[in-house]
Amino acid sequence: MLEQVSQSKVFGGWHKQYTHPSDVLNCTMRFAIFLPPEASDSQPVPVLYWLSGLTCTDENFMQKAGAFRKAAELGIAIVAPDTSPRGDNVADDPQGAYDLGLGAGFYLNATQSPWDQHYHMYSYIVNELPSLIEKNFPVTSKRSISGHSMGGHGALTIGMKNPERYSSISAFSPICHPTACPWGQKALKAYLGDNQTAWQDYDATELLRKNACPLPMLIDQGEMDQFLEEQLKPWDLLEVADHQNCELTYQSHPGYDHSYYFIQSFIESHLQFHAQYLLGQKS
Amino acid sequence: MLEQVSQSKVFGGWHKQYTHPSDVLNCTMRFAIFLPPEASDSQPVPVLYWLSGLTCTDENFMQKAGAFRKAAELGIAIVAPDTSPRGDNVADDPQGAYDLGLGAGFYLNATQSPWDQHYHMYSYIVNELPSLIEKNFPVTSKRSISGHSMGGHGALTIGMKNPERYSSISAFSPICHPTACPWGQKALKAYLGDNQTAWQDYDATELLRKNACPLPMLIDQGEMDQFLEEQLKPWDLLEVADHQNCELTYQSHPGYDHSYYFIQSFIESHLQFHAQYLLGQKS
Repeated sequence: MLEQVSQSKVFGGWHKQYTHPSDVLNCTMRFAIFLPPEASDSQPVPVLYWLSGLTCTDENFMQKAGAFRKAAELGIAIVAPDTSPRGDNVADDPQGAYDLGLGAGFYLNATQSPWDQHYHMYSYIVNELPSLIEKNFPVTSKRSISGHSMGGHGALTIGMKNPERYSSISAFSPICHPTACPWGQKALKAYLGDNQTAWQDYDATELLRKNACPLPMLIDQGEMDQFLEEQLKPWDLLEVADHQNCELTYQSHPGYDHSYYFIQSFIESHLQFHAQYLLGQKS
Repeated sequence: MLEQVSQSKVFGGWHKQYTHPSDVLNCTMRFAIFLPPEASDSQPVPVLYWLSGLTCTDENFMQKAGAFRKAAELGIAIVAPDTSPRGDNVADDPQGAYDLGLGAGFYLNATQSPWDQHYHMYSYIVNELPSLIEKNFPVTSKRSISGHSMGGHGALTIGMKNPERYSSISAFSPICHPTACPWGQKALKAYLGDNQTAWQDYDATELLRKNACPLPMLIDQGEMDQFLEEQLKPWDLLEVADHQNCELTYQSHPGYDHSYYFIQSFIESHLQFHAQYLLGQKS
């Protein structure tokens, strides 16, 4: 069922890409996995799921984040899925916009035509992909979740809604309040329709307002991020997190932008953060 | 004269891209520079020049090599030029081959039409670019040179021919004997004509056969590299280096391929190697 597309040795471990038929997305999907050197059937390792941002595939993080040195050292696998369903039959934005359709699945289950045929990234990330990974690779069922921008939104909302399935949540430059920003409003309206109550189920700030999140959370944000004010709005989330007394660490970095240069500068501290919970030093 | 195209903070330093008119290449060129945090007019830093391989631009190494953590720590700037002249007026391979013309300058000065109009990457790397860098950025005139594949060939030949201009040489998976491999023979014939004596002036193995290289050299090579036997031929260089009693360290790595996953696994040891000579701990 899994078809291997590539493999490269890296830091003593392996980066591999696979395609597989996805039932919930109703198309063929590609993902990438990093396996640290010691991962084996007799020594399975925990997994960090990384959700990428708009326009990305499984490749951006794996090529640009510089995460493998520390992941190899800590003994953590990393799985990077694609950011939307793919293929000739999968609906895309008619204008080819970068922020809707292909490359812009927003990690939700769409209910509106034509998106509801394939756009079920929420179920894919929460259930189908981990099942596949845990059946086919030497990994445990200890999972953490992280992501960038749209993928930071995905990590926060998926982690908050499934605290029993993850040990910790982190995000770089996440879209924190999608019901209140242009990227989010456009996507939520297209995928979920006009009923804004449905939107709240995929909004980290609104989810947290309803239920305090029991998982430790880490967010890093660059202060020169061009999307900070209009699209990301971390302050909305921070206000609610403070009110709910959540275990959320927010780090704001002068001078850094929205790019992978920012991510690579701080990815090792995110891996170290997740390691505390994945490797049982904290729980 | 320099026009800034982008800038991103990374590991406390800066990654910046610039365009500039090149006299020796007779076109507009783009390069990228990483400046470590402490680089300033009162504290100029040495520079590692990185030459990329076939099809690359200034971006591949900077995005994928994971070099900035260690370069920031050591206090070394990195300059990544493009791999050929560029622009609408610049000749390309009529069949659009990836191994001749655009993206495939081979770091030599072409003598044959139509290539001789623009393809003078040797002079650009040896003279024009360092002059520009040393005039416009807080760097010293201490330089080392490194590269990958075609860029490894460039680093070896340029370093060997200009030992007074560089402190040390390194390469990942370099084309070691271009007069004896298909990539090299195709490029050398096109750019330099049929006289094979002229080819030897851009061949690391043949240059070393004539003159021992006084600079310390480091080469890393993956054993699963698909180009190893037919195109790279490190053994030809090692044989001559041994005969000439050169200070060449050659490290062969089981399982690694020709990709940037290999480079990122060992780039920190190359930076550490160059630091010994650039920062005066050895000379």
